Amino acid sequence: MEADFINWLRTRVPGHPELMLGIGDDAAILQPAGPGGIVVTSDMLMDGIDFELAACRATDVGRKSLAVNLSDLAAMACRPLACIVSVALPRTNAAELARELYSGILALAAEYDIALAGGDTNTWDGPLVISVTALGQCSERGPLRRDGAQPGDAILVTGQFGGSILGRHFTFSPRVPEALTLHARYTLHAGMDVSDGLSLDLHRLAEASGCGAALNLDAIPVSPSAVQLAAQRNDGVTPLEHALADGEDFELILTLSQSEAERLLRDQPLPIPLTRIGQMVAEPGLWQRNPTGLLTPLRPRGYVHRAEGPAPSDLDQANS
Amino acid sequence: MEADFINWLRTRVPGHPELMLGIGDDAAILQPAGPGGIVVTSDMLMDGIDFELAACRATDVGRKSLAVNLSDLAAMACRPLACIVSVALPRTNAAELARELYSGILALAAEYDIALAGGDTNTWDGPLVISVTALGQCSERGPLRRDGAQPGDAILVTGQFGGSILGRHFTFSPRVPEALTLHARYTLHAGMDVSDGLSLDLHRLAEASGCGAALNLDAIPVSPSAVQLAAQRNDGVTPLEHALADGEDFELILTLSQSEAERLLRDQPLPIPLTRIGQMVAEPGLWQRNPTGLLTPLRPRGYVHRAEGPAPSDLDQANS
Repeated sequence: MEADFINWLRTRVPGHPELMLGIGDDAAILQPAGPGGIVVTSDMLMDGIDFELAACRATDVGRKSLAVNLSDLAAMACRPLACIVSVALPRTNAAELARELYSGILALAAEYDIALAGGDTNTWDGPLVISVTALGQCSERGPLRRDGAQPGDAILVTGQFGGSILGRHFTFSPRVPEALTLHARYTLHAGMDVSDGLSLDLHRLAEASGCGAALNLDAIPVSPSAVQLAAQRNDGVTPLEHALADGEDFELILTLSQSEAERLLRDQPLPIPLTRIGQMVAEPGLWQRNPTGLLTPLRPRGYVHRAEGPAPSDLDQANS
Repeated sequence: MEADFINWLRTRVPGHPELMLGIGDDAAILQPAGPGGIVVTSDMLMDGIDFELAACRATDVGRKSLAVNLSDLAAMACRPLACIVSVALPRTNAAELARELYSGILALAAEYDIALAGGDTNTWDGPLVISVTALGQCSERGPLRRDGAQPGDAILVTGQFGGSILGRHFTFSPRVPEALTLHARYTLHAGMDVSDGLSLDLHRLAEASGCGAALNLDAIPVSPSAVQLAAQRNDGVTPLEHALADGEDFELILTLSQSEAERLLRDQPLPIPLTRIGQMVAEPGLWQRNPTGLLTPLRPRGYVHRAEGPAPSDLDQANS
């Protein structure tokens, strides 16, 4: 079946102008078209932690394994170039599972015009593990980092937040074209993607930038899924709390000067909403701005999606 | 512990002139010094398949997870540049295990002067999985591919073969400087590294090149470990058979014209042995050349090291 699977994969992996050598040799070779730095990011998804294989479609798992990496490249405002996929497959129906995973990966790779450069396909007695490394290239403006926010900056977000567990954590669109457009047309100070929860990730951005962040809670764009989840669970957690703390929204947080933010919000250059939700402040930490203008501390909360259950993981990603 | 671990890691990850941005943002950024193509390869190692964590040192596992990737870069005669490491750690003593794994990785990374660019560190209830992606850069001569061998080429190998299971599969030196030296000084037609067994991998090289390979069995450099293993097991498998079929030697197979091979063997430009073991032939397949010059078929045999046990894996690496 090895030959069968590799043949199956080869017929489905299209060529790419920047891929000099793809599947079949000891390594793949890329010749990026531009002069920018090479951006690299990796995420590993495990059955029982990041998805429940028994309760979802393998094509969705494959798609997600690439999508989370594309979201990291979007966070850096870099152009995605290629991906490399390593999997540990449970032995039962390994080939069928591999085909489904790769179908999801290949469809998203085609959508974002990136090369599938190679990988490592294994079987074992354990649960499914899929590890994707994505490569991209910086634009002429260089990377958008998370440590460049300045006190006084406006905080903008793409899209809406909360309740991704109802389905959007599989179907989200990595904000790559959005990030490229905004980074090209506006002077952004800092950016990151929201993988672990809006308040937790904004707190990380503020920490990396050596300042704080103050939110106008009334301005947070709450997803209809957050409303639906709050209603379904009926456990006292409000839609806004879901929007602040749920993981896997994969929207962007951006900071930029107030004047640049005004210009951007006037232009509304994207087909998706862009919302100002607060501003960076000198005082480190996360804050909420009351209607009177008073700042009170806000606890950063998020979903440590690397380890569900009663004993959350105490290890997280080095590149998150 | 997350912050503890990342802090521990940060203090131990040195800077690198080609690493613009390392651990801590959404992705890492490399600015390769040369103009050559970017080479990328990935290998995933799993407890119970590629190592037995209970019976070995975690530092050795970490070292091996990077070393197998460096061997793939050596096979392409490319200069290693950076690696990115994703792990799924069993929850018990996860932090200690992570530190040991990274100690092995960092020591080898320092030895080969490559950047540790980032990664993704997770815990779960399953066995240890470690997936490393390595990036390199082609030299001015471009990559050394496995599909360039020509009938009549001499077949050369570095080092010795067989019995790596006795320890060398952890301690081997990826043949990076050797490959770079040979690729720079001689016109090589094809190359690959031996991960699954000399006869199996040579057969793959011949197949990729659209020709065959004929071995002089008397010339195969048999490792003392192969002799030791044959004696220990006393199961009728000869040291030569171990040399032909054992996996994880991580030596190089190279093909080049006979005249270039003569020059190379006269020069002996490396501190390790280089041995001519046969020649490429027009007739596809693997052959053994008898003392009379007659070619008889030789069955390619190897160790499908991705899945040990009674039901060997029917899936192997896309980039092997």
